[in-house]
Amino acid sequence: MTFSIHGLAVARGIAIGRAVLAASSRMEVAHYFIEPQQVQDEIARVRNGRNAVIEELQRLRADMPQDAPPELAALLDVHLMLLQDEMLVSGVKYWITDRLYNAEWALTTQLEIISRQFDEMEDDYLRERKADLEQVVERILRRMKGVAGPVAPPPAGPRRQAEAGAEAEYLQGDAVDVPLVLVAHDLSPADMLQFKQSVFAGFITDVGGKTSHTAIVARSMDIPAVVGARGASQLVRQDDWIIIDGDAGAIIVDPSPIILAEYGFRQRQINLERERLTRLRHTPAVTLDAQAIELLANIEQPGDVAAALRAGAAGVGLFRSEFLFMGRNGRLPDEEEQYRAYREAVEGMQGLPVTIRTIDVGADKPLDKGHKDSSLNPALGLRAIRWSLADPAMFRTQLRAVLRAAVHGPVRLLFPMLAHVSEIRQTLAQVDLARAELNARGAVYGAVQLGAMIEVPAAALMVRQFLRYFDYLSIGTNDLIQYTLAIDRADEAVADLYDPLHPAVLRLVADVIAAGASQGKSVSVCGEMAGDVAMTRLLLGLGLRSFSMQPAQILAVKQEVLRADVRKLTEWAQQVLAADDPGVCLAAS
Amino acid sequence: MTFSIHGLAVARGIAIGRAVLAASSRMEVAHYFIEPQQVQDEIARVRNGRNAVIEELQRLRADMPQDAPPELAALLDVHLMLLQDEMLVSGVKYWITDRLYNAEWALTTQLEIISRQFDEMEDDYLRERKADLEQVVERILRRMKGVAGPVAPPPAGPRRQAEAGAEAEYLQGDAVDVPLVLVAHDLSPADMLQFKQSVFAGFITDVGGKTSHTAIVARSMDIPAVVGARGASQLVRQDDWIIIDGDAGAIIVDPSPIILAEYGFRQRQINLERERLTRLRHTPAVTLDAQAIELLANIEQPGDVAAALRAGAAGVGLFRSEFLFMGRNGRLPDEEEQYRAYREAVEGMQGLPVTIRTIDVGADKPLDKGHKDSSLNPALGLRAIRWSLADPAMFRTQLRAVLRAAVHGPVRLLFPMLAHVSEIRQTLAQVDLARAELNARGAVYGAVQLGAMIEVPAAALMVRQFLRYFDYLSIGTNDLIQYTLAIDRADEAVADLYDPLHPAVLRLVADVIAAGASQGKSVSVCGEMAGDVAMTRLLLGLGLRSFSMQPAQILAVKQEVLRADVRKLTEWAQQVLAADDPGVCLAAS
Repeated sequence: MTFSIHGLAVARGIAIGRAVLAASSRMEVAHYFIEPQQVQDEIARVRNGRNAVIEELQRLRADMPQDAPPELAALLDVHLMLLQDEMLVSGVKYWITDRLYNAEWALTTQLEIISRQFDEMEDDYLRERKADLEQVVERILRRMKGVAGPVAPPPAGPRRQAEAGAEAEYLQGDAVDVPLVLVAHDLSPADMLQFKQSVFAGFITDVGGKTSHTAIVARSMDIPAVVGARGASQLVRQDDWIIIDGDAGAIIVDPSPIILAEYGFRQRQINLERERLTRLRHTPAVTLDAQAIELLANIEQPGDVAAALRAGAAGVGLFRSEFLFMGRNGRLPDEEEQYRAYREAVEGMQGLPVTIRTIDVGADKPLDKGHKDSSLNPALGLRAIRWSLADPAMFRTQLRAVLRAAVHGPVRLLFPMLAHVSEIRQTLAQVDLARAELNARGAVYGAVQLGAMIEVPAAALMVRQFLRYFDYLSIGTNDLIQYTLAIDRADEAVADLYDPLHPAVLRLVADVIAAGASQGKSVSVCGEMAGDVAMTRLLLGLGLRSFSMQPAQILAVKQEVLRADVRKLTEWAQQVLAADDPGVCLAAS
Repeated sequence: MTFSIHGLAVARGIAIGRAVLAASSRMEVAHYFIEPQQVQDEIARVRNGRNAVIEELQRLRADMPQDAPPELAALLDVHLMLLQDEMLVSGVKYWITDRLYNAEWALTTQLEIISRQFDEMEDDYLRERKADLEQVVERILRRMKGVAGPVAPPPAGPRRQAEAGAEAEYLQGDAVDVPLVLVAHDLSPADMLQFKQSVFAGFITDVGGKTSHTAIVARSMDIPAVVGARGASQLVRQDDWIIIDGDAGAIIVDPSPIILAEYGFRQRQINLERERLTRLRHTPAVTLDAQAIELLANIEQPGDVAAALRAGAAGVGLFRSEFLFMGRNGRLPDEEEQYRAYREAVEGMQGLPVTIRTIDVGADKPLDKGHKDSSLNPALGLRAIRWSLADPAMFRTQLRAVLRAAVHGPVRLLFPMLAHVSEIRQTLAQVDLARAELNARGAVYGAVQLGAMIEVPAAALMVRQFLRYFDYLSIGTNDLIQYTLAIDRADEAVADLYDPLHPAVLRLVADVIAAGASQGKSVSVCGEMAGDVAMTRLLLGLGLRSFSMQPAQILAVKQEVLRADVRKLTEWAQQVLAADDPGVCLAAS
């Protein structure tokens, strides 16, 4: 039966493929496909992990302290039973053998299936018993991590990467070589990085907002995605055929042949338009009235510079360094490792500038579950520069790595979330100290430009003080909107109030651009606004001359730039700024 | 051994008394003392609850579905064992019999003690088993609620309310008639309301910030409190002697006689100063240069009007209506019940205006655990007016109750957290609809002034649009600071960055005051800033003429007003506003 689910459109385009459900365990595990010859090894990994846990629990039971509550031993006995549950053991084998899931994915998938049995129980008390099952599975997962590292995910082979071109192929039923669409309750940033090297043609999550990090990574991968599709991971079954309409923010499950044909046609049209845009790659980004506009790329990893260059980026406007820090089980990368990553990006950009933002951890991007911020409102807590300044040794490790990488090409350092003059002074003092440390050990380092993110309302309101301290500014519109409107950008309950065209937001953005211009200092926008073609003319009109965005968006924005006449747009932008409802004003123009 | 713990000073003054530890169960339970003759009834309540749970589990076990995992029955057996654990049963009896704790408090206290045994286990897996114990206790608590309502907390009798005046009394050791100091990991707003009628001379919590609701209620009760005293609930033992220094934000545990004498002396001094201030009660709040200043009271419950009148308040500037909605297990008060509460406040104020703010639920003040916001950043989520507009029927129930109460005296309606013109329009439409509903049923209602809180940066930045729609504005500085600086006011990790004197905050406050003055509309401040005597002169200088604060703060602020010369302060305030670091500037003046 065909049905559709609506969510938020976060990455454009159309994907057609079969559903792969990612289990939403409380533990973050890797999800990837193994090769058929690895099946026996994966099964052995689960078995060894499970046996180790059984031994462990038996030992714990034997060594129980004298004064321990007597019920504890009885509880351990039940858990030993759970570990040997037939449904768990046989289910895991099935997912590994028949579906080629890696061991961790197989375990959490089977856990999810058994958990649903518990969920169906009427009594909430019985339902809660599933926590015991989850705990033994988590213990197995931990042991598997400790006992033997997971097999590295294989490079995405052609077997699963084939693009199905014709509808006939979609309808072959059991064909293996069809595109796959990932459906999950939620995806961690670490998961997303894994999928970057993976095979999925699109993805769908139950939760998340338009500018959640999950969505940002999807856009950077340039594959269609819908987030906030409530209930999708419950309603969609493994192997269901799915169309993702990334423009409308809709997914169609089990579509009829007519719908399939229609979307196949639209998919080909989109591909044609993309090809057309690629011809703009070497065209300079200059407006009709000869204003040169800087179009920069946002990247997450050094490897992303290839996509940036392919899109004709004039440099990297935002290298989100926190992605280097993720999925590492709490171990932070040392100076050498960071240096190599930054150097790779700098060299990769072949003389074009690379803006490296210091670690911006917090809110929707905790480093990993272990570090997860326990505060009530992580977006208003110890994150970004606050986190760095709270651990100056860690901060300077990053600063030294960046300074050293600057030997290999032009580098700009960018500091996130500054909001107080005292923080600015502390930050600059740490940069001086990092240089002194490098001097002391005779290390070579390069000159860097220093810049600040303007993403807290306070920073926008005291921009003149920021301009006294920094060489350039970068407006992080995602957070600036979030705080100015007090709207969590990842919370679907209020996502409709997250409005880039709110007059207060536009006023802050316009003020910062104007303040920078008055002092001859560069101001760029690196939030989602910069990559949204519907905003390009307004931002040009407000005086913006530097945009940083996902590589996939650069050519479409360039097309807008080429068609723009800044002189005309300037006057119009002032009208929009003065309007009660700039959104209506913009739509009417 | 004497030791001290430092936290945040949130309610001034000095308290000296013995520690009472409130258990921090996952369930919210009432904490109060029973009368000796109620001991047997309380023990019976626990026994009946426990027996009901035993029967229930036995029934569940018998009716288990055929296909249920076989381990489930085994788990239930262990839980049946836990329910009959000797340590649980005898411990609960002790707290009820010897300490006169109510049944729920006794259960959670004993749960905490047994839990600590689990916490001491080396293996994290064994530690986690304590969840099973917590679940059976929770089930007992739920049954106790269902089976028979808890005995109403007795009115605070003189037995425990005696103020110990001399050091000698503190040192009597086992005396029952000494002040008690509450020590808890955290306290819910509902707990705080209960304590309002209770006996504690001060309180201490491990978590919380300077303007958390817990702190606000403490100030409204005018008893010394320290929050964010990390580890206090672990380090302090039941019955420890404690000094709370509410001015320094410190607590001293097990003080020496010399320290005790010193603090006893300071406590008497503070009481003398308070008495001196009470003489200002009938003095008009007029500055040296004859500017009349409106000093209003913030209240949480109708009963608080007595304190407001005692302090000489010119009206109620903020009646936080959400306190009516709390601790009700999800059942919201109907129109009649709300009407009676608002009417009681309006009549109580004897013709002085009462400003009733519509429900402001969210962030640090969820209605109760059942309603607890599950979003990642509740402060940026569906709260306050957003919550009201998402449930218009509930919203209009409140509006009708307020409109009807306005028959009995001057009422101002105040809407929290508006940030969009669309929200303003929807809100006013709901007011019209509420009036129409009252007309339709022929109900009598009064005229009300309509006002908006300015507490989101976006609102401050578009204040001119707000002035078009509303009769008056009220600046909620707590939230305005929180969002402008992106600092959670309840998160100790960043509490030091929460700065009312940040230049961006002062600029927004000054702009809103000036905009209101230019249109002849009243602007007041109702956040913590208004009650802080260190801020009075600055706010007067910025043009503020209306302050709303805890009743306990009014007389001290009035003293500042009486000493102020607004003409001189105006020029000076502009200098502070232009300073890079207004805090330093203010301190130097």
